[in-house]
Amino acid sequence: MSATVLYMSMSVDGFITGPNDGPGNGLGDDGQRLHDWLWTGGEAGGASGVPGRPPGPNGEVYDEMLTTGAVLTGRRTFDLAGAWAGDHHDGVPIFVLTSRIPGDTPHPLVTYLTDVATAAERAREAAGDKDVLVHGARTAQLALAAGVLDEIQIHLIPLLLGQGRRLFDHPGSDRIELELTRIVNGPGATHLRYRVVK
Amino acid sequence: MSATVLYMSMSVDGFITGPNDGPGNGLGDDGQRLHDWLWTGGEAGGASGVPGRPPGPNGEVYDEMLTTGAVLTGRRTFDLAGAWAGDHHDGVPIFVLTSRIPGDTPHPLVTYLTDVATAAERAREAAGDKDVLVHGARTAQLALAAGVLDEIQIHLIPLLLGQGRRLFDHPGSDRIELELTRIVNGPGATHLRYRVVK
Repeated sequence: MSATVLYMSMSVDGFITGPNDGPGNGLGDDGQRLHDWLWTGGEAGGASGVPGRPPGPNGEVYDEMLTTGAVLTGRRTFDLAGAWAGDHHDGVPIFVLTSRIPGDTPHPLVTYLTDVATAAERAREAAGDKDVLVHGARTAQLALAAGVLDEIQIHLIPLLLGQGRRLFDHPGSDRIELELTRIVNGPGATHLRYRVVK
Repeated sequence: MSATVLYMSMSVDGFITGPNDGPGNGLGDDGQRLHDWLWTGGEAGGASGVPGRPPGPNGEVYDEMLTTGAVLTGRRTFDLAGAWAGDHHDGVPIFVLTSRIPGDTPHPLVTYLTDVATAAERAREAAGDKDVLVHGARTAQLALAAGVLDEIQIHLIPLLLGQGRRLFDHPGSDRIELELTRIVNGPGATHLRYRVVK
């Protein structure tokens, strides 16, 4: 059974980017620090700016991310990531949640949608028996509110960033119970996987 | 060597109380949920509102808290907790950080102080070779900024509370690196212990 799984690196104080995130500075000031676990010991090395498969426990989580059969992402994350050059991994379809459908979609793998429940459904169908990788704070929030987010995989980074963009910044939303299903502890990241209790 | 150790229960989305916390509702609406791990299977039971030693891994962390030799707490936490009736545990001295020293101090174990560095120093001295238990979000923030918080023990609760008071709510503060030193996973709480890298 395909599940929608949010994968996000988050500091202990809840941030997923540093401050001043925007075009050309997608992770914000110092925000790259949140993704060091993808680089540490990785094949590609940090110098190139291209993450590679990290060794050890972090590599297991990395592999798992890349076995997903579709990507569901927010428009902001998608644009700031340069659309992953049109291919997030292995040519799986990418569903982009946006408030305005753009006139042209230059990437054949990419579908823009405006409704989170529809986007999640389409992504599930496309993923077949594989999971759907979900990215983006706003998309996570909308998916949680719509009841279409099944799991949350947080890469918890031993860091107090102090400022930036929060993963969970939605005062007033309903209380949601989670169930911890797995802990993987790698160098520089503790991977906590939760099931959303519905 | 005595260390100052912050002990706080926090939801995955970063809250330490529910909304509307205040006199008579110290943990805020639904905030009691964050402390269920102290009740689950505890001796005293939840009905009485008095936590008891929980069994298993949670009990180990509970025991550790109660081996601390002094308490350093914020005034707000102290007052909302009813001053712990004057004795947090085992008659250890309690140092309360406050902006205004009250005229009378009815509890002989309690000392009010206005400077966090002084309060931390006094608490360390009082604790001898034991650790200092630190409580309170604002006090944690001030202690971090002053460089007098040594460790952070977060009881991470599988819950998105959606609203309330955050443990780390200090936009603009400096980035602080942590080092994960221990994970204890108990029913309903994952205890993550970090050393503050100075």
